[in-house]
Amino acid sequence: MNILKIIEKKKNKQKLTREELEYVVFGFLNNEIKDYQMSALLMAIVINGMSDEETINLTDIMLKSGDVIDLSKIDGVVVDKHSTGGVGDKTTLILAPLVASCGVPIAKMSGRGLGHTGGTIDKLEAIHNFQVDMQNDAFINQVNEIKLALVSQKGNLVPADKKIYALRDVTGTTSSIPLIASSIMSKKLASGAGKFVLDVKVGRGAFLKTLEDARKLAKLMTKIGKENNKETICVLTNMNEPLGKAIGNGVEVFESIEFLKGNYTSDLYDVVMTLASIMVSVGKNIDIKDALAEVKESLESGRAYQKFLEMVKYQGGDINKIAISKKVHSIKSNKTGYINKIDALKIGNIVKQLGGGRVYKEEQIDLGVGIVLNKKVGDYVLENEELLKVYYGKKDVKVQEIIDCFEIDVVPIEKEPLIYEIIR
Amino acid sequence: MNILKIIEKKKNKQKLTREELEYVVFGFLNNEIKDYQMSALLMAIVINGMSDEETINLTDIMLKSGDVIDLSKIDGVVVDKHSTGGVGDKTTLILAPLVASCGVPIAKMSGRGLGHTGGTIDKLEAIHNFQVDMQNDAFINQVNEIKLALVSQKGNLVPADKKIYALRDVTGTTSSIPLIASSIMSKKLASGAGKFVLDVKVGRGAFLKTLEDARKLAKLMTKIGKENNKETICVLTNMNEPLGKAIGNGVEVFESIEFLKGNYTSDLYDVVMTLASIMVSVGKNIDIKDALAEVKESLESGRAYQKFLEMVKYQGGDINKIAISKKVHSIKSNKTGYINKIDALKIGNIVKQLGGGRVYKEEQIDLGVGIVLNKKVGDYVLENEELLKVYYGKKDVKVQEIIDCFEIDVVPIEKEPLIYEIIR
Repeated sequence: MNILKIIEKKKNKQKLTREELEYVVFGFLNNEIKDYQMSALLMAIVINGMSDEETINLTDIMLKSGDVIDLSKIDGVVVDKHSTGGVGDKTTLILAPLVASCGVPIAKMSGRGLGHTGGTIDKLEAIHNFQVDMQNDAFINQVNEIKLALVSQKGNLVPADKKIYALRDVTGTTSSIPLIASSIMSKKLASGAGKFVLDVKVGRGAFLKTLEDARKLAKLMTKIGKENNKETICVLTNMNEPLGKAIGNGVEVFESIEFLKGNYTSDLYDVVMTLASIMVSVGKNIDIKDALAEVKESLESGRAYQKFLEMVKYQGGDINKIAISKKVHSIKSNKTGYINKIDALKIGNIVKQLGGGRVYKEEQIDLGVGIVLNKKVGDYVLENEELLKVYYGKKDVKVQEIIDCFEIDVVPIEKEPLIYEIIR
Repeated sequence: MNILKIIEKKKNKQKLTREELEYVVFGFLNNEIKDYQMSALLMAIVINGMSDEETINLTDIMLKSGDVIDLSKIDGVVVDKHSTGGVGDKTTLILAPLVASCGVPIAKMSGRGLGHTGGTIDKLEAIHNFQVDMQNDAFINQVNEIKLALVSQKGNLVPADKKIYALRDVTGTTSSIPLIASSIMSKKLASGAGKFVLDVKVGRGAFLKTLEDARKLAKLMTKIGKENNKETICVLTNMNEPLGKAIGNGVEVFESIEFLKGNYTSDLYDVVMTLASIMVSVGKNIDIKDALAEVKESLESGRAYQKFLEMVKYQGGDINKIAISKKVHSIKSNKTGYINKIDALKIGNIVKQLGGGRVYKEEQIDLGVGIVLNKKVGDYVLENEELLKVYYGKKDVKVQEIIDCFEIDVVPIEKEPLIYEIIR
């Protein structure tokens, strides 16, 4: 086989065979295919697309480029949850104990993300002494004992995706539905779980800006899941304003704990309860209404919060010590009116600039910085009333930049839907 | 500026500004833009195209990345000729003395090409002792004294094109009309000539396979020329069968000398006379019919041949010693009938395999090897009559492969046009 002929085919909108895709993925992994050839092929794929069959093949080939986690010793069907990434998205921290407390095992290995804040693993490290590194046996044992463990990824999972994604990131070739689907699904399939619930974020603060693209991605991921005999359900959710109140690692842990204690914003509540009831429903193979009732009962009774505390204790964390900066700046509204917009993307970037997220993989992040909103879209605010608090560290707070994230008007806009649709 | 944003724009079919194209070309030249980023952008250009304005800008930016040859001390308008490359294309060797003998100065610096045979410079080196390296002053003086010099390229001409072309060659991004046009025209403009006559080859043995593509390229190059105040005329010519009889360095020199002595095949004659009369017409600013009459007179009187001998003498060559291998293999027809096809591309590749062309820039080529056709398309051949002679060197002659280049049938096909059209 010849990489130039393969590039030529995709340039001319032809389908690539499984053998050609294997040649590409493994050739790139062992450096026979050069990065400049791979990026030309990736751009041809971004522009000319891939068929579902090509995407399913690519996913499988990438999956087989590395290890697959063996969760077979866990009792029950492990349901994994994934989000395509949003601003203030702390749902995993809440969902995991909530779903586990309903008896569905949560055995989640997460990576450290790039983004506006860290990933779930970074957030958990905002709890003093919380141990995210764990041997495989201990991980499996903990799940069997308490139904819940959140640890950092081990092993060589989907090295092909790591290498290809790193190249996509610097060559303008990220925005391709088939490439996104195969990247997410190869990693999910390698996680060893039996079923997947995927939160596909749509809007200003999300990677996907339109409902149309999100729908395409969701359908494709659901299809790839089916092809691998793993039930996959996608929930399309709004990511125009930040989810909940907190954006930042420590402050999101704090908000998650408050949620589990019964204090929550309605948007975060709706997303969490939707995802949790689907997870419990597919995990226990019961009706969605029954699942929702179980989830509600678990939250209201405090069992979900107890499950969280149990996990923190098992993993050595001190729940009374959460990294939140002592340097606080309160930002007040400069006018009276309805909050019609809070730009999720801009808020996310501000938290990243404060040190809350990383740009490069090796970067240290400041777990204590963040923003906590006092107002959400739809709220009424008075001049000089507090909009939000900034928890800052070494970097100064850029007040005007933060105020510019808000649109305040005398007339309220119609509230957007939060859950767009569920695709099975 | 930011390369990712520029890639994104082209990915979304937007036009790039001159400033953006400058950032790309100079950023790539000084290694700030990585080859894997450049190849992604090139693929986006190949698929999504470039406007004429972008192509004109890119050509100018590439031109200005290096030196421009100063031919201002030459008396008269220097007319340069270029071919997009074909099999058996020795027209420069014949045209140069023919046009110069009509009083139009030919001051040509050529590179050593990759291809089925060497470039003009390689071919001239098949004449024993012919000097292709010359200082600038000597070059100008020779042109002013005898109207003709063919030397190898000096100086740092269009380094941006060199670097970009090398990348295009290994990333499947060669087939783009705007990229081809800007590559050819930036090099032509750097040659310092005042007017250009471009032979755009179409067919099996050419880079462009369809008349439609050739027409687009020709129109675009003509436009770029006009934009630079350099009259540019394109002649679209057929490259399905090899041009003339000889394919190979030494054998093409021999055929060129025979041509100038009055012995020629009709296809090569038609192409040479068309190009020569256009060159004389634009060079002397006279009517095309008058130009053709001058060219004919110059050829028939032997003045053109004398001009060739004069150049060889000036550049130290010995016309009686031309590199042609003494190892000859005659290949005979295995049937009787009309020759309906001689596959130019395959014949070219066979000569390259014999050692007559290079794959890599540093490669030595065997100037003595080649093929000389005894029959052309339309000719009638008897079984066991000679089809061609192979002049070979270290590599064996693959007889069957050569015979497979021919299609011989009892019914003749209609002859294809040789000169498709002229675009001004």
